[in-house]
Amino acid sequence: MSKKQTIHVLGSGLVGSLLSIILAQKGFQVELYEARPDMRRADISGGRSINLVVTDRGLNALDRAGLRDKVMEIATPMKGRMLHDIKGETTFVPYGQKDNEVINAVSRGDLNCLLMDEAEARGDINIHFEKRCTGYDIKTKMLSFNDSEHVQTDIVMGADGAFSALRKAMLDQVMNFDYAQSFLDSGYKELVIPAGENGAFLMDDASLHIWPRGQYMLIAIPNIDCSFTCTLFFPFEGEESFAALKTTEDAAAFFKKTFPDALEIIPTLAEEFANNPVGSLVTVKCNPWHVDGQALLIGDAAHAIVPFFGQGMNCGFEDCRVLDDLLSGPDADWEAVFAAFNQERKANTDAIADMAIENYTEMRATTADPKFQLKKRVGFELEKRFPDRFIPRYSMVMFHPDMPYAEAKRLSEMQNEILNQLCVNITQPEDVDWTEAERLLVRK
Amino acid sequence: MSKKQTIHVLGSGLVGSLLSIILAQKGFQVELYEARPDMRRADISGGRSINLVVTDRGLNALDRAGLRDKVMEIATPMKGRMLHDIKGETTFVPYGQKDNEVINAVSRGDLNCLLMDEAEARGDINIHFEKRCTGYDIKTKMLSFNDSEHVQTDIVMGADGAFSALRKAMLDQVMNFDYAQSFLDSGYKELVIPAGENGAFLMDDASLHIWPRGQYMLIAIPNIDCSFTCTLFFPFEGEESFAALKTTEDAAAFFKKTFPDALEIIPTLAEEFANNPVGSLVTVKCNPWHVDGQALLIGDAAHAIVPFFGQGMNCGFEDCRVLDDLLSGPDADWEAVFAAFNQERKANTDAIADMAIENYTEMRATTADPKFQLKKRVGFELEKRFPDRFIPRYSMVMFHPDMPYAEAKRLSEMQNEILNQLCVNITQPEDVDWTEAERLLVRK
Repeated sequence: MSKKQTIHVLGSGLVGSLLSIILAQKGFQVELYEARPDMRRADISGGRSINLVVTDRGLNALDRAGLRDKVMEIATPMKGRMLHDIKGETTFVPYGQKDNEVINAVSRGDLNCLLMDEAEARGDINIHFEKRCTGYDIKTKMLSFNDSEHVQTDIVMGADGAFSALRKAMLDQVMNFDYAQSFLDSGYKELVIPAGENGAFLMDDASLHIWPRGQYMLIAIPNIDCSFTCTLFFPFEGEESFAALKTTEDAAAFFKKTFPDALEIIPTLAEEFANNPVGSLVTVKCNPWHVDGQALLIGDAAHAIVPFFGQGMNCGFEDCRVLDDLLSGPDADWEAVFAAFNQERKANTDAIADMAIENYTEMRATTADPKFQLKKRVGFELEKRFPDRFIPRYSMVMFHPDMPYAEAKRLSEMQNEILNQLCVNITQPEDVDWTEAERLLVRK
Repeated sequence: MSKKQTIHVLGSGLVGSLLSIILAQKGFQVELYEARPDMRRADISGGRSINLVVTDRGLNALDRAGLRDKVMEIATPMKGRMLHDIKGETTFVPYGQKDNEVINAVSRGDLNCLLMDEAEARGDINIHFEKRCTGYDIKTKMLSFNDSEHVQTDIVMGADGAFSALRKAMLDQVMNFDYAQSFLDSGYKELVIPAGENGAFLMDDASLHIWPRGQYMLIAIPNIDCSFTCTLFFPFEGEESFAALKTTEDAAAFFKKTFPDALEIIPTLAEEFANNPVGSLVTVKCNPWHVDGQALLIGDAAHAIVPFFGQGMNCGFEDCRVLDDLLSGPDADWEAVFAAFNQERKANTDAIADMAIENYTEMRATTADPKFQLKKRVGFELEKRFPDRFIPRYSMVMFHPDMPYAEAKRLSEMQNEILNQLCVNITQPEDVDWTEAERLLVRK
């Protein structure tokens, strides 16, 4: 038997770990390099969001590694959004109409540990920790780690995240490389709602909780230990902003005024507000994603997106599924595979990037708007009456994993025009002119 | 008298040289660093376009240095576009309706030499050649040149072009730095139409010549030595592309078929096509343009644009004029000046960047379209009849230098809708319904 081809993968995060398993299954030896220490032995959150949502696209990719069930064991299903108004009153808006139309909260750390354990258990994947990639020379195919260590590569794949070192090497060395990084005017800070006295959830655990306040919002996602992870998405600058809340007293007063019901169940607000960092929210687009048949960007390294559609990891996992489809076995024509991957994924990752930003506006502002809730309900009714002709955007992204993101975006833009027409003069779904609705849907 | 504050300027190109003169006039000592050798002593074209267009915005900025007349002495005015069809037949489309509505061709090299001569003649500007900036440390304000030489700065301004080293330092070191570089699918190659036998121009010298061919075009701009500089803008890849023209015979056959009248007067086509490089066309947008009050990007370094509106240099010169307005004297509050400059210029440079790309489509495709020529003529007639209410986009950009680019873009988009309405069913300007035209213009 001939020696296996070795692939060097950068980043043992969620995408890098799953990618390594899929590559190993195809018959490759994988050397996986991770900048940080082994998170299974050190407590590091790395400043990243500490829980995530796994949806059908991600689960379909996990199927390729036989890991759906193991992941679902550590997940908490959420059936809809629980909207909290300024008086603390709540409204539940379901994500879908069917029982299986749920999204699943999972701890980033737990999921990553699971994937690394699975990768290492195979025997054909070696994870090298505390090896930060600091360069890649395209001409010599030499990777540098920690500035001074060098590794000769044949094939390298960068799953090294939004601030990818491999992408930086491409930005510096590839002619006519299109690149864009764009930051939102808001950042985020994480806070904790602990479990209640008897280890019970202090709010409904089958919901993603949102306190939408127009230019900003607080959200809370359940954890399996019955706590919630809260995230405040908030402008960096301005009258109501991180810059304006200078002291812990300012923060407490702001929460009392704006999120009174949340404040009651965040006992450590002052300490967390003072100590937890403010994270940035970046969108990265670039092209091409590969250098001939020698280097490939994947996941956030190729297309970092903001978290408001819960699709960052799912989209990166979908990358792995698509690459799995394109790889027949250990004799890959890498240049053709990379070009086909780039071609198939680029329009779709651009689409989810744009939809994720649009969802930020929806979540922080319009979810609290009666018109928004009316449109959601009319959308569900249209889906019920005309299931072949109308699927809400959220459902297409979350519950129709075979529909490409770009197609979901295109269809939902057409549907939104129809929804606007149908809802223009009504206040409840019962008032919709269903004959007109059918006419509009057939015409589109 | 207290010692003058020193400003370090990167790049002695067109913008860097004019900027240095304006800063010196305000009472600063300027140390100007240029990566290349002194072009007045070495023959270097640097792969950049070798002629340019100076328009009113650029001339207004040159006024600040008292250099308008000197520049006009080396310029060749052009009154309009001469369109060459595939049979070699020509149509002249004027740029404006007034005698002074002309644009002025000038050699990049001649203009740059003039500006460097003027800068050095002052005595308070030192140009340091062959000093390539290779780094800037934001914390220590230390500039590096040629990797090993270091210069401590107080204020640094990067006029170091589309691939600015100062901007790269900001991309690497500034948190939440928005950045985008985007390349067109076409590149360009320069060719020469020499002067005729008696030193006369071989085509009309008061025109910018265009051979529009849909997906590509050839243009020619007159030089003061009675030659023309031709530029072929052409896709990199595809059926008709640089990649497809593999031999000089391919190139000659392509020119014979596509630009037959041009081929007759480009005797050195084969040699030039083989030897001249293919340049890229990049748009760069970024934000912010400054680091506190210590570093500023200006000109292409802040906002590189494609050349199709002839505004790259004019926009960079306009930067200098705006900075001149914002600087009262040698006691500048740099942070306030830089922030105000960034604020005033960003929307305008974004607008000209977008309009320059739109003009590419217009020049290569629609200038040959009868509808385009009809709209141009109707636009001129509207301007004549309603001079306070209608000014064509081209005229606003070229001949109304006090109108901000963003305003020119906004107004022209509204006007274009009106033009489309007026031209929908007509074939000649005489058929326009002028009552309707006035109604539409008053309403807008």
